[in-house]
Amino acid sequence: MTYRALDEKTVLDYVRSRPDLKQGFSDTTALSAGEIGDGNLNLVFIVRNSKNPRESAVIKQALPYLRVAGDSWPLTRERMRFEAQALLLYNQLTPGLSPKVYDYDEEMSLVGMENLADCEVMRKPLVERQRFPDFVEHISTFLATILFKTSDLYLSGVDKKTLQATYVNPHLCKIQEDFVFTNPYQESPENNWNAEIDAEVQAVRSNAPLKLAIADLKEKYMTQAQALIHSDLHTGSIMVNAQDTRVIDPEFSFFGPMGYDVGALLSNLVLNFGSHYAHTPDPAEREVYQEYLLDLIGGVWEGFAAKFEQLWIEHHSGELVPDAYWKFPGGDTAFATFRRQYMRRLLQDTAGLGACESLRRMMGIVSVWDITSIQDQKLRAVAERFVIRVSSRWIMERASFDHIEDLLGIVREEASAVVIA
Amino acid sequence: MTYRALDEKTVLDYVRSRPDLKQGFSDTTALSAGEIGDGNLNLVFIVRNSKNPRESAVIKQALPYLRVAGDSWPLTRERMRFEAQALLLYNQLTPGLSPKVYDYDEEMSLVGMENLADCEVMRKPLVERQRFPDFVEHISTFLATILFKTSDLYLSGVDKKTLQATYVNPHLCKIQEDFVFTNPYQESPENNWNAEIDAEVQAVRSNAPLKLAIADLKEKYMTQAQALIHSDLHTGSIMVNAQDTRVIDPEFSFFGPMGYDVGALLSNLVLNFGSHYAHTPDPAEREVYQEYLLDLIGGVWEGFAAKFEQLWIEHHSGELVPDAYWKFPGGDTAFATFRRQYMRRLLQDTAGLGACESLRRMMGIVSVWDITSIQDQKLRAVAERFVIRVSSRWIMERASFDHIEDLLGIVREEASAVVIA
Repeated sequence: MTYRALDEKTVLDYVRSRPDLKQGFSDTTALSAGEIGDGNLNLVFIVRNSKNPRESAVIKQALPYLRVAGDSWPLTRERMRFEAQALLLYNQLTPGLSPKVYDYDEEMSLVGMENLADCEVMRKPLVERQRFPDFVEHISTFLATILFKTSDLYLSGVDKKTLQATYVNPHLCKIQEDFVFTNPYQESPENNWNAEIDAEVQAVRSNAPLKLAIADLKEKYMTQAQALIHSDLHTGSIMVNAQDTRVIDPEFSFFGPMGYDVGALLSNLVLNFGSHYAHTPDPAEREVYQEYLLDLIGGVWEGFAAKFEQLWIEHHSGELVPDAYWKFPGGDTAFATFRRQYMRRLLQDTAGLGACESLRRMMGIVSVWDITSIQDQKLRAVAERFVIRVSSRWIMERASFDHIEDLLGIVREEASAVVIA
Repeated sequence: MTYRALDEKTVLDYVRSRPDLKQGFSDTTALSAGEIGDGNLNLVFIVRNSKNPRESAVIKQALPYLRVAGDSWPLTRERMRFEAQALLLYNQLTPGLSPKVYDYDEEMSLVGMENLADCEVMRKPLVERQRFPDFVEHISTFLATILFKTSDLYLSGVDKKTLQATYVNPHLCKIQEDFVFTNPYQESPENNWNAEIDAEVQAVRSNAPLKLAIADLKEKYMTQAQALIHSDLHTGSIMVNAQDTRVIDPEFSFFGPMGYDVGALLSNLVLNFGSHYAHTPDPAEREVYQEYLLDLIGGVWEGFAAKFEQLWIEHHSGELVPDAYWKFPGGDTAFATFRRQYMRRLLQDTAGLGACESLRRMMGIVSVWDITSIQDQKLRAVAERFVIRVSSRWIMERASFDHIEDLLGIVREEASAVVIA
């Protein structure tokens, strides 16, 4: 079918025309659809059987331009291919941790998938101080499995490069290159920031050592093809409820540095930590929840690192270092040292790359709901200054990091210095 | 035309059938051909007009298997596409520094190109202590131009990734991954080494810190897509005469770490340096030529670094860091610092990656003519031990390198310790 953007009416006929979508409904005579897209790039419809509202599906279709910038920023619709491929891979490697894909239509740049009606995007419940007992377990499994199993530690060189060739995604890479690693730290018309923190923003923009470090991290993002990364894995790309954790929206996927995915998640938990200076006025209540957030950060890293290394020990089938390479007296110890050094560098990448994602939210094109939902600009500034300080230190001090406690220590130090006027 | 391997007869009809090849000959009734292939992967014919022997062309055709291993190691013929693409790019960006391409036939996996009748592969004249007054100038221009102009320092992110997508070359990458970074340092049936240095070879294979460092360098080779690299740029891939320098055989081309190209060249000059302990028995004569080789190593790096940085200053059009990023008080100094740090890391990569290429020649599948042409196995061992020591130190000490003199100092120190029994 030639591409045409669907609307709430045409999407119904479309669903009826696709066997893999149609089969999810016991009856397609009473379908209804609502558009719920709040993203910038896509149409998102929920299609329901009015006779049985539990029968539903999400239809996500790429628009040929960036919505927030109107028609002025054309984007290739090919990005829906990256999303579909990545979701199908997630379905296969980590079943239950992403929406199930029912159908993918390349011509229409469209994916039909499971409607996660019982889940919500993670930002809001984190602001509401909800807790998710299985989140650490789920997301660390997701991160460890996807990153390990698409890397040179698991795949043959030929298989990895062949897979990588299906994720050449320059246009969406460009968005992150611009909006995470560049424009926020220089004059750029789309930048937005709280007038209360203008001095801090200008200080970042003229902080030479920090900008040198960010340029190094951008080079890593642009050149280091370690594994298939989601590349936008903040808490707005994760849907949760008490039992469930689902990773959504992998349209930015490409082969990049693993630390960017782990880091985006951890730094967005830091962002949420900061937002409670406004959202949770009672200091005791705030501290309890902030401690919970530190537990999440620590738990995600520790869980990820333990599972990643366990996968590595169990499946050292990858091209990077074959088994025979470690067959010498002391070789087992050397292999253990190699893993330890690898995980240490990954922790440092996690800190540096992740902190670029939180830092840019303070001064770039788009902030996050955790912050923008703060009405009082002075209180918002308290949160933002905290995030700027933690992010800057994660970037500048990353070469010394050897344990997640090093990252958490900085959060605690900066938290202890926060003064709410 | 469906693929079929040519022979000395059928290649003549082939040339007559191709307008772009035929036009190089004033008369095609008296063509003759000789096969000169000494590589492992390809047929190479020189086709001449017997009535005017100055009219000639090289016809290079990929075989569907690795010759040295018989039919047992199948290879994709696609590699000739990488060679043709790279040579055409070289022709365009650095005219006169590679053979001119006349014709490329994808179906036949065949490139027709300039016959460099007046040049010879660089190894032999280096063994004969010849000098090449323009070599440093030429090869540093080649390296600086190709590496800079295919990198994120010059190209937009979209252009670079689009170009990179045409160089997905997993099968030839695998050859270097195995034979440069892995198999020589472990038990592997194809390894060959001089019995005189068995102790040194076994010491390398059980040297845990060295093997950890080589594994790190292999990861860099496998993941860091900095620029289009030749990926086999030793002195056997360069043809020279007194006036001319030509880079040949870029079939291993892909987007990898820049330092591998610069390093392969420098480390092969170290290999040649070592070979003169056998090839040049007179100590005074030997020292003079070894000093010349040090001048070449220093000159190539200094010329490369100066030209690369000059290109960067003149054309900072690349995606990595836009001009506006450095527009702040002190920004010019920050940009200069960024360039200096980038070149320093490039020097360290050059040392480490290059030294893997020389080290593997001492204990892997194939040595180099500089060494294999030494008849006396004890003298050959003197050269080989020297190369093992220099290479190991370049790998282990690279993090401290800040200037080419640091690399040269190690060559000098190890040279001063050489004893010829």
